[in-house]
Amino acid sequence: MTAVQKGAGDRDVILPGGERTIYDYIPYAGEEMIERLVKLSEELHGITVQQVNSALVGGGVAEMLQSLIPIQRSMGLDVQWNVITGGHEFFRFTKSLHNFLQGKETALDIMGAKTYWETNAVNARLIDGTADVVLIHDPQPAGLIALVGPEIRARQKWVWRCHIQLAREIHQVTDYLRSLIELYDAAIFSSARSLPQWNITSYISLPYIDPLAEKNRELTDEQVQGIRAEYGIDDAEKKPIILLVSRFDPFKGHAYAIEAFELVRRERPCQLVLVGGTAADDPENQEIFEELQDRVAGRPDIHLLNLPPDSHLVINALQRAASIILQPSIREGFGLTVSEGMWKGKPVIGGDVGGIPAQIADGYNGFLVTPGPDGVDEMALRISYLLRNPLLAREMGRRGQATVKERFLITRGIWDELTLVKNLVTQ
Amino acid sequence: MTAVQKGAGDRDVILPGGERTIYDYIPYAGEEMIERLVKLSEELHGITVQQVNSALVGGGVAEMLQSLIPIQRSMGLDVQWNVITGGHEFFRFTKSLHNFLQGKETALDIMGAKTYWETNAVNARLIDGTADVVLIHDPQPAGLIALVGPEIRARQKWVWRCHIQLAREIHQVTDYLRSLIELYDAAIFSSARSLPQWNITSYISLPYIDPLAEKNRELTDEQVQGIRAEYGIDDAEKKPIILLVSRFDPFKGHAYAIEAFELVRRERPCQLVLVGGTAADDPENQEIFEELQDRVAGRPDIHLLNLPPDSHLVINALQRAASIILQPSIREGFGLTVSEGMWKGKPVIGGDVGGIPAQIADGYNGFLVTPGPDGVDEMALRISYLLRNPLLAREMGRRGQATVKERFLITRGIWDELTLVKNLVTQ
Repeated sequence: MTAVQKGAGDRDVILPGGERTIYDYIPYAGEEMIERLVKLSEELHGITVQQVNSALVGGGVAEMLQSLIPIQRSMGLDVQWNVITGGHEFFRFTKSLHNFLQGKETALDIMGAKTYWETNAVNARLIDGTADVVLIHDPQPAGLIALVGPEIRARQKWVWRCHIQLAREIHQVTDYLRSLIELYDAAIFSSARSLPQWNITSYISLPYIDPLAEKNRELTDEQVQGIRAEYGIDDAEKKPIILLVSRFDPFKGHAYAIEAFELVRRERPCQLVLVGGTAADDPENQEIFEELQDRVAGRPDIHLLNLPPDSHLVINALQRAASIILQPSIREGFGLTVSEGMWKGKPVIGGDVGGIPAQIADGYNGFLVTPGPDGVDEMALRISYLLRNPLLAREMGRRGQATVKERFLITRGIWDELTLVKNLVTQ
Repeated sequence: MTAVQKGAGDRDVILPGGERTIYDYIPYAGEEMIERLVKLSEELHGITVQQVNSALVGGGVAEMLQSLIPIQRSMGLDVQWNVITGGHEFFRFTKSLHNFLQGKETALDIMGAKTYWETNAVNARLIDGTADVVLIHDPQPAGLIALVGPEIRARQKWVWRCHIQLAREIHQVTDYLRSLIELYDAAIFSSARSLPQWNITSYISLPYIDPLAEKNRELTDEQVQGIRAEYGIDDAEKKPIILLVSRFDPFKGHAYAIEAFELVRRERPCQLVLVGGTAADDPENQEIFEELQDRVAGRPDIHLLNLPPDSHLVINALQRAASIILQPSIREGFGLTVSEGMWKGKPVIGGDVGGIPAQIADGYNGFLVTPGPDGVDEMALRISYLLRNPLLAREMGRRGQATVKERFLITRGIWDELTLVKNLVTQ
């Protein structure tokens, strides 16, 4: 018998951010919410939850678990985290699957499916039957449920958490995963729009932000102004800063932001800051960045910054330095940059698309504009309105912060997850 | 000199609901909000506000002032309320003006405009110069500002409150009132969409509900079940009640609600209750009601109720008796029936149109569906989902209630108004 090579998948993951506790969130989520959570977690003492995904770092799901699990453990919950391992071919296939589920035309070749099941079979040893609830993230490890023995399966509750916005309207798409996912006891989706018509108890848990993560934690005014100055941006007191943080992607509306900005700047001094990143594996990003470089060349008061992917602190500081935040997307998943901006007390002007209207109530805690070229005048009007009425802008920002506090903090995500666990184990 | 005939306009209106105080709202809006309001009102002691509209009872604005003013007075604010008087011809013209501003093609004849100014001139005596801030509601009394003497005008701040959803995109429309409204010191609009491009400081204050009004106040279970039984509706425990409260108007989606209901009823027992009213001056209402009568004739478990306009208590009880509330509008202003349902802790499924997405975050505190026939399947799926998952339905309802508490209560409306007054008098 050959020794099986040990990888990240073999032991429970030890977390770097493990010193954070639920009580650190009181100043953000409020005592009442924390008390509700602690009470709920007490009802779950003695229950073991096993979380399984496919990456320890990098990507939204890994980031989420890095924040989530230490907090759950600090509430006395017994949470285990395992990461499946796989080869290049496996991840190539699951990337195609991801794109396919989002509605892109892509070939899900039969050889890829073979690798998928082989890799899941190798990782099946991670499921040792000690957990009461197994929480599987996204399609990569979804096959595990079909590979564990019947005795283990019978004494566990299995939940599939889908972080992808499924293209629900394409029949093929939902059919592709359906019979696998219907083996689970429950499923969690990130939006009502992606809820498929499957015969499974389904929950919706909207995305959220972590107020203690590098991207969102509080900064001193010195830190904020230091980073602002470092990037050559003028003080917002002198020249209000209008900020757009987004990947350089054709659907984020950079060009419309520039047009709207130019209309406003005829009236009053202000600056536009466009912050994004390019990914090595995405040549389209680089192309759009170069297009924007050409477009803004020689224009004063426009700052175009191409930052590395881990620039959380810089983005945090620039969001805090900003007067107004734009997210004029023409296509969007949920658009968590909107909540990030709102959390920093800034008025956010977003495109009326995807999950943005779930975050912004137009005219109350921000503004929604028509996506695309028709929205340029609207966007310019909203920017002017906010610059002319700083008291109203501040109140709008305050309301945005309250919205995020109520709906889009990690504590609400934990609440959703634990409620589901409780429902499953008391069934 | 002839004695001027005295009408409602001549003296300050005495309110029937005058016994209500701000402290009665603590259980609904929370102590923190009430404290903030009381503190704000203390900063306004010594300031007199004069509210002027065109009806003492009937219509949304009158209802709003009936609720609002007693509360403001209970905070020690000096608030005067006057109602302008006018003849049939005046109200015929202002009705046309209202329709025109909403974007309907209608003739604003020159003779009507003459009556408008004559009536405003007669009512100008209501402005005696004692108030620090004059708050004028809607177009009917908007002309007063152009008819008061320069000394009075100079020592007062004037605000125009627009309760109409202006068809902003029609240039003619905004031009029609523009030069008049620009005489004011500030304007308040009910939505960002209706904000015109005028040279005036503009505020946005979204609509709200009064938790102590007949339509929303708490009822005993006995009252709720008594009224339900009186209308021949079965207990929701036995047969879940799906409710749509709406005028019988072609844009409210009654037909789609019936189709969705029929799809759900194939799966499980439930009842559909359609509650509306017909107005004597609107033959279209009556027509649609009769159409619906024909459509549901002989179908079991569908209750179609045509109630008189003041049936607030009945509607309140039916909303509280319901399991799920529908508002599948295909065109909508703000759609306050959505907040009314959410306030009663019910999951609301609404059309993704008008102000409904400002109230419902899809999948969080309710569901949004595509307006029109394409949304029928979605609506049926959402109804089934909620009926199958009563715990999730309850949590969704609880979240809806929290949303209304935070955003759509009268206390927030008072906050908006007093903040504006404070800004004006400290300028």
